[in-house]
Amino acid sequence: MANSTDKPEPIRFRFAQSLEAPQFIERAAQYAKDPRKYLEEKLGRNVLEERKHLLHIPDKVDKDIYGAGEHKANFEKHIAKLFGKESGLFFITGVQAQLAALKTHCERVGRNRAAWHVTSHLETAEAGSYKHLYGLERVLLGEKDENPSLEAIEKALSLPEDQRPAVVLLEIPNRTLGSKTYTWDQLVAISAACKKAGVIFHCDGARMWEIEPYYQKTAGKTFADVAGLFDSIYVSFYKGLRGAAGAMLMGESSLIEDAKVWQKRVGGTVITLMYEIIDDERGFNENIGTFARKWKKMDDLQRGVLEATEKFRTKDGERIISFVADPATCCQVHNVFSGYTIEELTAARDKVEEKLNVRLFERLRAKESVELMTKAERERMLETNGNNVVATEDDRKHTIEWMLAEETLEVETKVFVDAFAAFAKELVTAGAAGKQ
Amino acid sequence: MANSTDKPEPIRFRFAQSLEAPQFIERAAQYAKDPRKYLEEKLGRNVLEERKHLLHIPDKVDKDIYGAGEHKANFEKHIAKLFGKESGLFFITGVQAQLAALKTHCERVGRNRAAWHVTSHLETAEAGSYKHLYGLERVLLGEKDENPSLEAIEKALSLPEDQRPAVVLLEIPNRTLGSKTYTWDQLVAISAACKKAGVIFHCDGARMWEIEPYYQKTAGKTFADVAGLFDSIYVSFYKGLRGAAGAMLMGESSLIEDAKVWQKRVGGTVITLMYEIIDDERGFNENIGTFARKWKKMDDLQRGVLEATEKFRTKDGERIISFVADPATCCQVHNVFSGYTIEELTAARDKVEEKLNVRLFERLRAKESVELMTKAERERMLETNGNNVVATEDDRKHTIEWMLAEETLEVETKVFVDAFAAFAKELVTAGAAGKQ
Repeated sequence: MANSTDKPEPIRFRFAQSLEAPQFIERAAQYAKDPRKYLEEKLGRNVLEERKHLLHIPDKVDKDIYGAGEHKANFEKHIAKLFGKESGLFFITGVQAQLAALKTHCERVGRNRAAWHVTSHLETAEAGSYKHLYGLERVLLGEKDENPSLEAIEKALSLPEDQRPAVVLLEIPNRTLGSKTYTWDQLVAISAACKKAGVIFHCDGARMWEIEPYYQKTAGKTFADVAGLFDSIYVSFYKGLRGAAGAMLMGESSLIEDAKVWQKRVGGTVITLMYEIIDDERGFNENIGTFARKWKKMDDLQRGVLEATEKFRTKDGERIISFVADPATCCQVHNVFSGYTIEELTAARDKVEEKLNVRLFERLRAKESVELMTKAERERMLETNGNNVVATEDDRKHTIEWMLAEETLEVETKVFVDAFAAFAKELVTAGAAGKQ
Repeated sequence: MANSTDKPEPIRFRFAQSLEAPQFIERAAQYAKDPRKYLEEKLGRNVLEERKHLLHIPDKVDKDIYGAGEHKANFEKHIAKLFGKESGLFFITGVQAQLAALKTHCERVGRNRAAWHVTSHLETAEAGSYKHLYGLERVLLGEKDENPSLEAIEKALSLPEDQRPAVVLLEIPNRTLGSKTYTWDQLVAISAACKKAGVIFHCDGARMWEIEPYYQKTAGKTFADVAGLFDSIYVSFYKGLRGAAGAMLMGESSLIEDAKVWQKRVGGTVITLMYEIIDDERGFNENIGTFARKWKKMDDLQRGVLEATEKFRTKDGERIISFVADPATCCQVHNVFSGYTIEELTAARDKVEEKLNVRLFERLRAKESVELMTKAERERMLETNGNNVVATEDDRKHTIEWMLAEETLEVETKVFVDAFAAFAKELVTAGAAGKQ
């Protein structure tokens, strides 16, 4: 973004990607010309060598025609193999990938019903597509502030057959809940319960790249181990991986073949998606293997911020700045700001930016609860650029969502800590001044 | 494409675009960086000046986020204005654009039924999406070898209300029928009949760019005049315009707002489609204003080929090489080859390529009729790369589909004429030799 003054661009604790359109496309063009050379320059030969077991570096990219193309097929195979699945299918959106999976599962089972949590993308951000377009019914699982428990899922699994879901979808990790997730043992138990009940288990793995280090660290488990607990899984390429757009569905080959029919019906079989496929491969190659470090940094700065802002409390003794999840499960978190209005928070943010040239968030909003929001509000909420703002309980609680990404990975931890501490101090000082 | 010998690449009478993936993306990157400079270099300043009333040249492109972005909005406005419509909405595919339009029209009217011709894309290439996904019913119009007549349409319009379509879709021109189309007066009459019956009239204008010179020449009518006969129209950016992928739906603003909900449901609201939008704008700017010349050249070479191959007849006296439409209505036609098998046609093509370094087609197929093909066969047929092969009546009739595009516009007419004449001669000579 152009600046009319000499002041450098502030450091942003942002959610969205920062490149402008021409540079974004130019980067893809550079990669397409010679993927290996691009990656050598971007990552260095040593890093490339270290990560080569993870990467997919084609000698040559080609243009898929209506989904058929050698490069696309090889990339799909590579990702599917990483997740231990037989086949993969690229989609332009996760909406298409997941609904194709759910519809196909339901048709194969012969029961037209799927189960998911109230915070699921299917429930909040797809204008009721599952119902209005795919003719599916759904069972809502659990309560809104936590991932559905084994008990809540078992309750759905033991419904009478005409109400029982054909498929259970869990989002690993849960984006709306600040990336809260299940432990490995919990997932194993839920997977076993689904299998026992003869119910398909599908993973919304939009942020599986981000959460994998958690399963590595806590249970020594890989992408394939986690995906192995599910019958099918969808992953996204434009979030943590920073690709242009797109998603992949993985599972048995017969599932993928059936899902292709729904992809066609939904107008998802495009003359070519080569740009997205190529840029997503670039994003995958650049970012895979970096999420443990991003999580570590988020964890470090979270400890630092909590320590530095320990003393800043609301009149009810609540922390002014807190984190969800706490501790962070991955590089993406929510911050909850308690005790102040939007106007006060925004003024404090601007003061911090002025003093430290760090901008903590873009927009804020408070809502009574997700359920009370109109559909349009919920959709806007989920699509806000910059930091995404998440609903909270009262007008003195606001939430921002952000991730440690390549743009901020090299920013010193102290910069984050100082900025949040200055923000809290600013709020308290301005609040006290306002009350005089 | 790399060639291992020194022989230059043959001239191809092709259908598909010829650029390889990295060059395709690089071209978009060049355009995105500075659209005006790119176009000045590509078209020259004089041409740019001549066509400036048609073009949309932004000072700067940006990245739309979930469909919201200044550049996208301006491009949509520009195209909608060209067609005299209130609003436009970019879609990644025509399948999505048309089904969103039909579904929205049907919901607003309160009758769940649309009418189209047996050759329509909705009937042959979308895996029954209208039915299986959108829950629409359809009325088939007319007979398979001709565009539906006013009488056939009036028959549908006068059906009892519970069977009457809410919307009639016509494809202008009809791709499956070699770009055959209606005269201006016929279209006026059909439009009036729909209006009188209170039935919405929607235009499948996938090749409206290609056919507009026909309405200009025969009736002095513009894009806006033709679109003015319809309540809504969809156009495509990756065919004659040679953009990356994508389509636009245009109509009243309230229609477009409602269609956005279906776009979201269908998973068509992508994090960004900036690459497609930018490259489609490039294709539009490069190709708009060229279709009259492309049609003229197709018309010239058609006359030349018909004259040069006049004497080459099957034993039933039929022309070995004929054209559909005859005369051509635009730059895109079918050639019908009569009296020879696939093997004979392919051998003759290879001989011509050897002698003249001109390659007439990529693949051929004969089918009894479209109706007898399996759905998968029809879909493959419609998606063949290179020249697309169209079904014909018997195994001695084969059809290729091709267009005069930027790749062949500067090839001399004589090259086409000589190649087709050599092809006919080769067929006759080889046939006679085979019979000895």
